[in-house]
Amino acid sequence: MQKPLILITNDDGIRAKGLHALIEIAKPMGRVLVVAPEEGHSGESHAITTKIPLRLRKLQEPDSDGSDEVTMYACNGTPVDCVKLGMTHLLGSLPDLVLSGVNHGSNSSISVIYSGTMAAAQEAALNNGTPAIGLSLTDYSPDADFSPVQAIGSELIGKALKFGLSNEICLNVNFPALPLSEIKGVKFCRQANGTWIEGYEQRTDPYGDKYFWLSGRYVNNEPDATDTDEWALSNGYVSVVPVQPDMTCYKELERLKQEWKV
Amino acid sequence: MQKPLILITNDDGIRAKGLHALIEIAKPMGRVLVVAPEEGHSGESHAITTKIPLRLRKLQEPDSDGSDEVTMYACNGTPVDCVKLGMTHLLGSLPDLVLSGVNHGSNSSISVIYSGTMAAAQEAALNNGTPAIGLSLTDYSPDADFSPVQAIGSELIGKALKFGLSNEICLNVNFPALPLSEIKGVKFCRQANGTWIEGYEQRTDPYGDKYFWLSGRYVNNEPDATDTDEWALSNGYVSVVPVQPDMTCYKELERLKQEWKV
Repeated sequence: MQKPLILITNDDGIRAKGLHALIEIAKPMGRVLVVAPEEGHSGESHAITTKIPLRLRKLQEPDSDGSDEVTMYACNGTPVDCVKLGMTHLLGSLPDLVLSGVNHGSNSSISVIYSGTMAAAQEAALNNGTPAIGLSLTDYSPDADFSPVQAIGSELIGKALKFGLSNEICLNVNFPALPLSEIKGVKFCRQANGTWIEGYEQRTDPYGDKYFWLSGRYVNNEPDATDTDEWALSNGYVSVVPVQPDMTCYKELERLKQEWKV
Repeated sequence: MQKPLILITNDDGIRAKGLHALIEIAKPMGRVLVVAPEEGHSGESHAITTKIPLRLRKLQEPDSDGSDEVTMYACNGTPVDCVKLGMTHLLGSLPDLVLSGVNHGSNSSISVIYSGTMAAAQEAALNNGTPAIGLSLTDYSPDADFSPVQAIGSELIGKALKFGLSNEICLNVNFPALPLSEIKGVKFCRQANGTWIEGYEQRTDPYGDKYFWLSGRYVNNEPDATDTDEWALSNGYVSVVPVQPDMTCYKELERLKQEWKV
């Protein structure tokens, strides 16, 4: 039987340490195709490129003796572009699994909607229900220690290859920034209700014109709820949230039907 | 009592006909602040700008005699940047309503996750639960006829101002490309399960290098389901889907807890 085919991307770009940590995790499990952005694309969510031509740059081919089965491309587009190009152009058939990350920084709670890492995983899941996992470490440092992701991430990736995921569902996996010995385990949870409280720092450029930089801090609106990803991370667990593409609020739908009467 | 304060943005850019149609709809209902992208940002989803400085360019102030209460800015960022800058920097208090659109083209079904129009509405809803509506017309033409949006859109906007929306919920409103006389009414519905079947057109530039353009077509995976936005639009109705920020799949969450045992 042929080894599983694993497509890997990220949103921190082809040079990010987290991407290469993920490649090392995936290599023993299958043949690996990497298609990752040339540059960082954090916070670009589900953006697709339609106004400039997309280009691919081949960086690595598998060794001829089969010792290293990694093919690698850099792409000038977003994480979602990378998944689309990988799945529809570079591969002749669907991959067995798509992995995105390991992101330098958390994608828990409401950050899921801003995250390029998670958009890439979701894009894969939308393509014939391909199992997909986005992995993130709650440490923004370019030199973060990804070794705890190795042990626990491998187990989760193995489960996804073995059991699959339901149609169009992907996983949002976040790791606390702790040594492996201090991680208490894995919690399946829901997305916490949280908010980015934001503002803009206003500056003046050397030519006298004003400009703005976004700044903000995250607030957990339900710190006492023990079934959320934020609680899991704050209490030493790896959080795993299954993410779906249906954004309909069914409760509000019933309310509107009753009350709005248009 | 002071008139309601309405913040308007879009993803087709400050010059788009649909934006100006929406401003005309909103003007009789309140004071209007427009913050819209300098250029088109379709398909940029919930992207935020963090790598280049954001700038605002003032284009219009209210008339001193109070006859036209529109303030207008162009911004070099994404639709979500426009909402953030408008809500946290330009306004001293929360607006009563945020409107996004009118988009040139549909944002029904799965297109909601790629849509800059809907990301802007969702961003507003995340900011203290401000009521927000994204409006789209299923006609991509720059010169599309927005007159049917005027009558029905006004009614929906009036309801939102009167009744509000539940916390963090926004509305995804799509109009069929039909004359007003042929529109049968408004349907509250759920997001249809659909897929973009995509591929890339490969070309060679004058310098011999390959590049790619995304192309695709939408497929409705449940054409017989009468409770979806796609069904409503195909059958002459305006579709209204309440959209929530919680992307957790609770059914899969229970399955994973039972079956994965990590």
